[in-house]
Amino acid sequence: MSQFLTQLGNGAIAVEAFLSNVLEEQRAAGTPVRLAEALRHAVLAGGKRFRPFLVFQSAALFGVPQDVALPAAAALECIHCYSLVHDDLPAMDNDELRRGRPTVWKAYDEWTAILVGDALQSLAFELASDAHRQGDAAVRAELVHALAVASGPIGMVGGQMLDLEAGNLPDQPTATVADVTRLQSMKTGKLITVACEMGAILGRASAKDAAALKSYGEHLGVAFQISDDLLDAEGTAAEVGKATGKDAAAGKATLVGLLGIEQARAHLNASINSAIAALSSFDAKAEPLAEAARYMGRRDS
Amino acid sequence: MSQFLTQLGNGAIAVEAFLSNVLEEQRAAGTPVRLAEALRHAVLAGGKRFRPFLVFQSAALFGVPQDVALPAAAALECIHCYSLVHDDLPAMDNDELRRGRPTVWKAYDEWTAILVGDALQSLAFELASDAHRQGDAAVRAELVHALAVASGPIGMVGGQMLDLEAGNLPDQPTATVADVTRLQSMKTGKLITVACEMGAILGRASAKDAAALKSYGEHLGVAFQISDDLLDAEGTAAEVGKATGKDAAAGKATLVGLLGIEQARAHLNASINSAIAALSSFDAKAEPLAEAARYMGRRDS
Repeated sequence: MSQFLTQLGNGAIAVEAFLSNVLEEQRAAGTPVRLAEALRHAVLAGGKRFRPFLVFQSAALFGVPQDVALPAAAALECIHCYSLVHDDLPAMDNDELRRGRPTVWKAYDEWTAILVGDALQSLAFELASDAHRQGDAAVRAELVHALAVASGPIGMVGGQMLDLEAGNLPDQPTATVADVTRLQSMKTGKLITVACEMGAILGRASAKDAAALKSYGEHLGVAFQISDDLLDAEGTAAEVGKATGKDAAAGKATLVGLLGIEQARAHLNASINSAIAALSSFDAKAEPLAEAARYMGRRDS
Repeated sequence: MSQFLTQLGNGAIAVEAFLSNVLEEQRAAGTPVRLAEALRHAVLAGGKRFRPFLVFQSAALFGVPQDVALPAAAALECIHCYSLVHDDLPAMDNDELRRGRPTVWKAYDEWTAILVGDALQSLAFELASDAHRQGDAAVRAELVHALAVASGPIGMVGGQMLDLEAGNLPDQPTATVADVTRLQSMKTGKLITVACEMGAILGRASAKDAAALKSYGEHLGVAFQISDDLLDAEGTAAEVGKATGKDAAAGKATLVGLLGIEQARAHLNASINSAIAALSSFDAKAEPLAEAARYMGRRDS
């Protein structure tokens, strides 16, 4: 297994253990039983934990150990998990399965799923602002602010809005490459980018280093999305672990659909190269982040 | 009009103007048009803005001017507004009208309403953590943490969970006074209490003063809820401005239903007295808060 996949896996184990403890603390503190169970279903369902990996590796550039970065990484993962729970709802993407298990609304019901998502968003900001988990108040406040902006109306939620508009509202103009790029940079890109920004905040990075990491994150976000779309268009369900060809069936505009597979792959490779180039001012410590970018060119799940 | 109602009204005007500006900034920064419009529908729909009033008056005890407390007060109001938008959804309380206007899901659709609520929660934490709006990072981080805990699984969302469980799950045991008290303290009480806590945080209050304000907020939250239930049981729709008798029709357990109107009113008066007693260590500056508590005994809307 590549070093990247080993590091990704180790980070995922740490995040799962941390989040499991957090949810147990919340249960013990008085979370209603059904909500506590549904939160575990939503959060502890596996997944690559790619965003936490980016927080860890970005913070590590500045010597921040993984356990110090854990609360921020877990906060970001809570936001990601909440978005999946809400996106799966019947009123949104109407998905019954995620990673081979029933989605939260299917396993429980819609109101429970709405509240699970709402609670996970609160929990994210509770974790990011907890003085017992991160000693520097300025770091805590900055982490919260970056995460809130990336999640909100000009970030992830705005992107999901554009995505649903495209599918649900009549008379939408045909999407252009610029439309798809905007949608994807908001819906997926902002959380990938903020992972790197949070690493820089944790590491009290210089403005120059923070800008370099942000640029890396932006290019990586593009590469991540195109590789996802290519998997959907090219992969078999067995390889990818979820239904493929779904975008085309849903009439969903993707760069792959608009540009064709060959041009999309060229765009992917260019994004990977730009992401790696953005790391040039860091030394060999940035190799895990460069490796993560290269991995986007050979994803099989 | 009483001084309390004048102060409440002035605070509401300031909060509405502030939130209107914030939503305009978010629109200009790239919020999708439909989301930007639905956010205005959700947030700028009137309402008493009682929680912001509590932030203002609690902060004023320590000499914090209203404009300094505004971002925190508006953040709390965003959380309150998001909770109303989600509670109104068909999968939750299925309400089509709020303050005489269509609810967000009715005016737009369910997915828009879910995303409006999600965006408002992000926006709340963005406001509370914004360095341009509040200079002290420790204050910002504390405001976020208090607000997140009050909103989350052991706070407001947990309370809404208990409320929906009571109505939607078969074989729920008959609610006791203790059950109803727990539910209401989570669903309604926590946001009322945190308003007072946020005032103390803004004012860098001593631990003793912060505890006194928290105690005030807890008693006030109980009084607020009982007065609400009494309005529902006793008021006419014309007076209250919304449908009354709804709790009884929905088979919803309230203290009024369990204790009867007379005992509930006695409990209300005791809570008002306890709230006022908790203010005893403050001087005449606490009069607006005492007046707010007294008002719970004579609400007509």
